Amino acid sequence: MADIPASHPRRASLLRRQRLVDAAKLGLLADSALIAHGRGEAFDYLLDERTCDSARTAIREVAARLQAAQHPVISVNGNTTVLAGKSLIRIAAILDCPLEVNIYYRTPKRIEKLLALLKNLRKEISEELAPNQFSGDWKSAVESVNILGAISDGRILGLEGPRSLCSADGIESADVILVPLEDGDRCEALIALGKQVLVIDLNPLSRTARQATVTIVDEVSRASSILFSYIVKEKSNPTDWDNDAVLKDALEVMAQSVNRI
Amino acid sequence: MADIPASHPRRASLLRRQRLVDAAKLGLLADSALIAHGRGEAFDYLLDERTCDSARTAIREVAARLQAAQHPVISVNGNTTVLAGKSLIRIAAILDCPLEVNIYYRTPKRIEKLLALLKNLRKEISEELAPNQFSGDWKSAVESVNILGAISDGRILGLEGPRSLCSADGIESADVILVPLEDGDRCEALIALGKQVLVIDLNPLSRTARQATVTIVDEVSRASSILFSYIVKEKSNPTDWDNDAVLKDALEVMAQSVNRI
Repeated sequence: MADIPASHPRRASLLRRQRLVDAAKLGLLADSALIAHGRGEAFDYLLDERTCDSARTAIREVAARLQAAQHPVISVNGNTTVLAGKSLIRIAAILDCPLEVNIYYRTPKRIEKLLALLKNLRKEISEELAPNQFSGDWKSAVESVNILGAISDGRILGLEGPRSLCSADGIESADVILVPLEDGDRCEALIALGKQVLVIDLNPLSRTARQATVTIVDEVSRASSILFSYIVKEKSNPTDWDNDAVLKDALEVMAQSVNRI
Repeated sequence: MADIPASHPRRASLLRRQRLVDAAKLGLLADSALIAHGRGEAFDYLLDERTCDSARTAIREVAARLQAAQHPVISVNGNTTVLAGKSLIRIAAILDCPLEVNIYYRTPKRIEKLLALLKNLRKEISEELAPNQFSGDWKSAVESVNILGAISDGRILGLEGPRSLCSADGIESADVILVPLEDGDRCEALIALGKQVLVIDLNPLSRTARQATVTIVDEVSRASSILFSYIVKEKSNPTDWDNDAVLKDALEVMAQSVNRI
């Protein structure tokens, strides 16, 4: 891909694309991961590549539900790790919750590579200055983020085969799961187990978006960075949440793009 | 990717995805080709994976303009070849026009592989029964389709570097170019040269879609197959074409998807 000029109006999107192309070459992603990313790009294009107001409300709700959880966990796949790994480690450090690598097209090699990448990011972040609003020992908070996924000693009941594998200390025992970019079958199974499933999905019509407890219709790196800013700043309470309302609102924002011609 | 049941409602889309994943492994596609395909999938999802009425009108217009052209050419890249190569060779056979491999991220190896694939498809199609409405020698019509792209003896004025390369007998001397899935810069340069540029693009807001002479907002394999059926059946005349109207209509169809929740 050619160099992207600093002034390019879609620079952030093109840089994300390049990071995924690079990650695919390193073997971090599933075969169809780039296609999934492209689908997201299209929906984001219709959102004008901005976090819409209803997505902000959903991010606030996700923050509140993670803060109120007994056993929250953040489940990440390849695309999420590459695009939002850093923000999610920072969030895990503040919530004192584990991060679990859990991928749909499961191969030991890919899990190992993602675990190694996350551990590198954790080290990098532990050496950063503490966020302004954070009181405590940032370095030790970050270092103590448990990165799960190497051992599959748990099961997601209701799923078959490798897709049912998870960590007993992570997804299996969690009451609230933040799982950006989840697959429809797995989202359904987790909901059926009575867990709260919080997702980030740019397609408001996807099965995942429609089944989740709370859906943030936004690009995963933007949403994760805003989520971090809410979680570090304040503690709020979960509300009586109408998820269909945010899906409809997102579709309406996308529909407004007709006015751009 | 798992086997796709025959009853799956999105089977056609999933099979297309698998063909592209396989083609990527064979080195037929550019690094970011799968991302581009994914973007298309998302827009097609919003179109309910159907050719909308305004797209049908655009396909009819493209048929008429190709039939009325002095020197038509069909320019294909990797994704187009994989998804719609067969239909486009059939169209070239009926129009008696050349097909040119012309790719944005140009490497000799990839061009060679695409030329080989197209020549195989041409052979396969030459052995098929002639289409019902076709009067003439199908085998020799197909065999005489000139597949260009091996030699870059032409230039697209207004572009720099490898992106400016083309065939003198193809794009350079064409008055009308059918170029599904074209890049925005190249579309602009071809238009500036006074050529008619006919594109197939699922994103009605893309630069290509907005600059082209006629834009078919539809999935490339569906549109190419319908285009073939129009071209083999009848000869019609180009109209005074309002391209913005089809773009607006496609966006309005997409906006209707809000009612699916």
